[in-house]
Amino acid sequence: MKIVRSQQVSGTLPKRRHEVIRWDGWGYKDCKFEFRDGVISFRGDRYPIAGKRLNNFRHWIEELFDLNLEKDIRPRVAEPSTFPEPIRNHLFLEDLRKAGVNFSEDGMDRVIRGHCQTLVDLQVLREHRYERIPDVVVWPSCHQQVVEIVDVAVKSGVVLIPVGGNTSVSLAVSTPAIYDRTIAVIDMTQMNRMLWVSEENLTACFEVGIVGQDIERELHKHGYVLGHEPDSHEFSTLGGWIATRASGMKKNRYGNIEDIVERVKLVTSKGVLEKKFTAPRVSIGPDFDHVILGSEGTLGIITEAVVKIRRIPEVRHYESLVFADLETGIRFLREVAERRLQPASIRLLDNEQFKCGILLDPPAMFGNLYEVFKRFYLSKICRFHLDKIVAVTLLFEGVKSEVVHHEKQVYTIAKKYGAVKGGEKNGRKGYMLTFVVAYIRDFAWDLSIYGESFETSVSWDKCLALCTNVKACIVRSCQARGIKHFVVSCRVTQSYDSGACVYVYFLFKHLGAPEQAVQLYEEIEDEARDEVLACGGTLSHHHGIGKTRSKWYPASVSQVGVQLFRAIKKELDPGNTFAVGNLIPDEMMKAKL
Amino acid sequence: MKIVRSQQVSGTLPKRRHEVIRWDGWGYKDCKFEFRDGVISFRGDRYPIAGKRLNNFRHWIEELFDLNLEKDIRPRVAEPSTFPEPIRNHLFLEDLRKAGVNFSEDGMDRVIRGHCQTLVDLQVLREHRYERIPDVVVWPSCHQQVVEIVDVAVKSGVVLIPVGGNTSVSLAVSTPAIYDRTIAVIDMTQMNRMLWVSEENLTACFEVGIVGQDIERELHKHGYVLGHEPDSHEFSTLGGWIATRASGMKKNRYGNIEDIVERVKLVTSKGVLEKKFTAPRVSIGPDFDHVILGSEGTLGIITEAVVKIRRIPEVRHYESLVFADLETGIRFLREVAERRLQPASIRLLDNEQFKCGILLDPPAMFGNLYEVFKRFYLSKICRFHLDKIVAVTLLFEGVKSEVVHHEKQVYTIAKKYGAVKGGEKNGRKGYMLTFVVAYIRDFAWDLSIYGESFETSVSWDKCLALCTNVKACIVRSCQARGIKHFVVSCRVTQSYDSGACVYVYFLFKHLGAPEQAVQLYEEIEDEARDEVLACGGTLSHHHGIGKTRSKWYPASVSQVGVQLFRAIKKELDPGNTFAVGNLIPDEMMKAKL
Repeated sequence: MKIVRSQQVSGTLPKRRHEVIRWDGWGYKDCKFEFRDGVISFRGDRYPIAGKRLNNFRHWIEELFDLNLEKDIRPRVAEPSTFPEPIRNHLFLEDLRKAGVNFSEDGMDRVIRGHCQTLVDLQVLREHRYERIPDVVVWPSCHQQVVEIVDVAVKSGVVLIPVGGNTSVSLAVSTPAIYDRTIAVIDMTQMNRMLWVSEENLTACFEVGIVGQDIERELHKHGYVLGHEPDSHEFSTLGGWIATRASGMKKNRYGNIEDIVERVKLVTSKGVLEKKFTAPRVSIGPDFDHVILGSEGTLGIITEAVVKIRRIPEVRHYESLVFADLETGIRFLREVAERRLQPASIRLLDNEQFKCGILLDPPAMFGNLYEVFKRFYLSKICRFHLDKIVAVTLLFEGVKSEVVHHEKQVYTIAKKYGAVKGGEKNGRKGYMLTFVVAYIRDFAWDLSIYGESFETSVSWDKCLALCTNVKACIVRSCQARGIKHFVVSCRVTQSYDSGACVYVYFLFKHLGAPEQAVQLYEEIEDEARDEVLACGGTLSHHHGIGKTRSKWYPASVSQVGVQLFRAIKKELDPGNTFAVGNLIPDEMMKAKL
Repeated sequence: MKIVRSQQVSGTLPKRRHEVIRWDGWGYKDCKFEFRDGVISFRGDRYPIAGKRLNNFRHWIEELFDLNLEKDIRPRVAEPSTFPEPIRNHLFLEDLRKAGVNFSEDGMDRVIRGHCQTLVDLQVLREHRYERIPDVVVWPSCHQQVVEIVDVAVKSGVVLIPVGGNTSVSLAVSTPAIYDRTIAVIDMTQMNRMLWVSEENLTACFEVGIVGQDIERELHKHGYVLGHEPDSHEFSTLGGWIATRASGMKKNRYGNIEDIVERVKLVTSKGVLEKKFTAPRVSIGPDFDHVILGSEGTLGIITEAVVKIRRIPEVRHYESLVFADLETGIRFLREVAERRLQPASIRLLDNEQFKCGILLDPPAMFGNLYEVFKRFYLSKICRFHLDKIVAVTLLFEGVKSEVVHHEKQVYTIAKKYGAVKGGEKNGRKGYMLTFVVAYIRDFAWDLSIYGESFETSVSWDKCLALCTNVKACIVRSCQARGIKHFVVSCRVTQSYDSGACVYVYFLFKHLGAPEQAVQLYEEIEDEARDEVLACGGTLSHHHGIGKTRSKWYPASVSQVGVQLFRAIKKELDPGNTFAVGNLIPDEMMKAKL
């Protein structure tokens, strides 16, 4: 049966999105970590952690970063009240009006859509130092309106930058420094209809402006899930996932975005690029879907996609395991992957992250567990060292009999590697905290602590060395710059047949100007990225190139690859309407071609 | 541990390949169906069927096609002894000599590499009616030599056509009608080294000229398998699989070629296109591997590839099931796919194919089973109708406990759909016969029976209607042309989350000139293809476009897609060195750009 729907969803992101989400950082406006009456707690009732007193967290911060929270918290800046004058293209605006397309030149509308979620963006926002913000925000309502918008933009020479939730961490949607053309942000979030669901094929068609959590809510009504859950799942959109080649926490069960998307429409300057059929697999020459996937806004605007869906899983079961050290943990992950026994999600937290578990206690991520281990079990009975142990969190989903069978086999392997079970509660907490962790950075900023994470993919044989060497590299970089208070850790978040995705987390204190701190951070991440590449890691597993990593792009795809991208760009966008400047941010890409 | 090897493999296809394989049809020279002393049997001891007396097969043929084998067998033509003079490019040949590259202008070397395995090719070969054969056959010995060959070809204006086993069924490697340039076939089969095996990553690097069965033999020595088994597995090459986006029988376990290939090198006129790293997954802009996959020789020469491998499975178990009718069989396949319980292989044979089982008896594919059913079981006890029942063959591979668990669940579903078990023996025979079935067409030709199979992919909701309508369409086409003696059947060979791959088989008798017969076949397949597309099927699941299906290419990928392909082609091959004429066989693609 085909369920046909066509109402717009009342989505997470309204047109006036700054009334709901933070203009100067991550997440919901009504949620944040705060320090009050001597206690850190999380404000807002959207997450289970809300209202808990996070005493360990305070002590850890104060100790590690040599801070006194009573004194050292900086106030946040107010929303901006003045904005750069828009560069107006009257022809374009007139055509939009004629076509009945909704748009706004309001300052806040423009500011909040002209940035990503990198430290650089935060600094620019919080210091009101916009080099360039978009001139106009446009809200298309359907595929056909996008076709019309692109048409008038091509005619009038306007630059178009499609955005979803602006959750990128690669500067991909940060406004480029183009001053001779009007820059219009195409906010896709009002194009969020679920167009149809096919129960026989287990596919659904969405307008790609729909936000992750909205997709799941809509599908749940009919008994289905998409299952694609990047950490940005609350705010990022289907279109953004396609444009960056996103990966989700549960990719083992649901696939990465390229496995999920069966058909996709890209509105280019030259017309609509799309396969003219929906089928599970074809052999009809080069697969242009893989040109659209990863195009990062440079080739056109993605409007609609057919995606695979699955029934709501019968059971969902969390678990956690503790291993003696990182090497053992990685070997366990490797064997689980080799046997293709992978749970929906399997993640490995290194010792630093394991110990950080006590921070957010209660509800602790390994908090109580760690205490128990500390007092009794590990040190007395096992050979485990508290400064070496690592944790693995597991999430099983599916039909009950399958999950039971799966779990049994995974635990048999775990036993072989000497694992101690950490229990379901700790496993569950690990996943629950994913969305809350994203709020820490904004709180840290207020304490003059700057940090980010970055990721890579690497083959199994190089995984341990990469983790070890990149952490050591960051330590060296800090020492060379006289940075005394910092923390660096890693986790393995995705497993594949031949390798894994590794995340590195790095936070440091800097009492100078934020601009300096961000500069320092970037230098250190650059050095770490060089080390990642030297260790056989890749430029990105799922965050993309954007502008942040473009200097390494030619070395990753070969010069022939770069020229091929240029040729594709030139064919689909001869007037450089999509001059967002990702992948190859040189003059050719910025200016009119 | 990394196993490094670099010897050339003593492969299936030697330089003088016509000493081993048939020049005018399919397979090994020493194997064929033959009629002697009143009996059809299979000659040659390479397959288990060898030497068996296939009495049912004879009766079926004689009855269905109104033939008398004692009289109606045509003799095969002899090997050609005269050949078209090669169009020589002295500069090119001189440069090859200087570079120490091996080549040949021998007539048979050229003839056997200038065709595919379509009926058109057969007719051209068997009637010695070469419109055009390659002028020279070149055997590169390594990646670097390919770089040199492409270099001199670009300089001298020679057309290059890379070939592997010439098993294409799309005219993809059939020599194009270009008379103003020298056409050099680049025979990749001597580039067949296994360069390394990584036991930690379960990956291996091969030169892509290696033939399927040779890959498996080399990997077996170290305890591994690739598991990619297209029906052409005995003769087709890794490079050919990549160039056509091939699919294997066991794709459920091992993946299709795009899932298997982790890294690939394409030598283009502009240099080498390749990712500069080996990793399981990345997000670094458009994925150009998917431009190489499916490029069908139009963009350059694929030389080396890193592929995923797996350990030799602990157990391998065959099974067969019989269902009441096609609809029930498809519903069973759909549920197995939805539950992701897919065995390494699961195939559904329609009633016509099921009944054909008696043909190759003994060793029968369902032969005995069918007889037993006929005499006793089905007609008396069940509600099954002999003219409606269908069969499913299953192949499970993996760790024993997994296979047992898997099987149990699959049979539970089968029971729900009223299946009767056909036993392991019949399941095994089904797979064993795959390679033998390919020899039938040459035998049929000698009996004035002409036939081929063609395939498509389709979503589950349209699968049954497509099977039914396409068969009906072929019946109509035959009737309209006064064709009385024919057989049409189908099978579902691959299952996916959202759909399946369907094969259609069609054989008919024609007593006129083979040229006429082939013309008739083409008309009927064209009409069937239009019906496939009208039923929501695709242009090809895994055979590719080649020249056979190019007229439908624009309608499949959109005009923007065609223009994008042209732009890619122009960028990578501005001089049209790779003027093989696939995908877009117009003048622009044939001539120098």
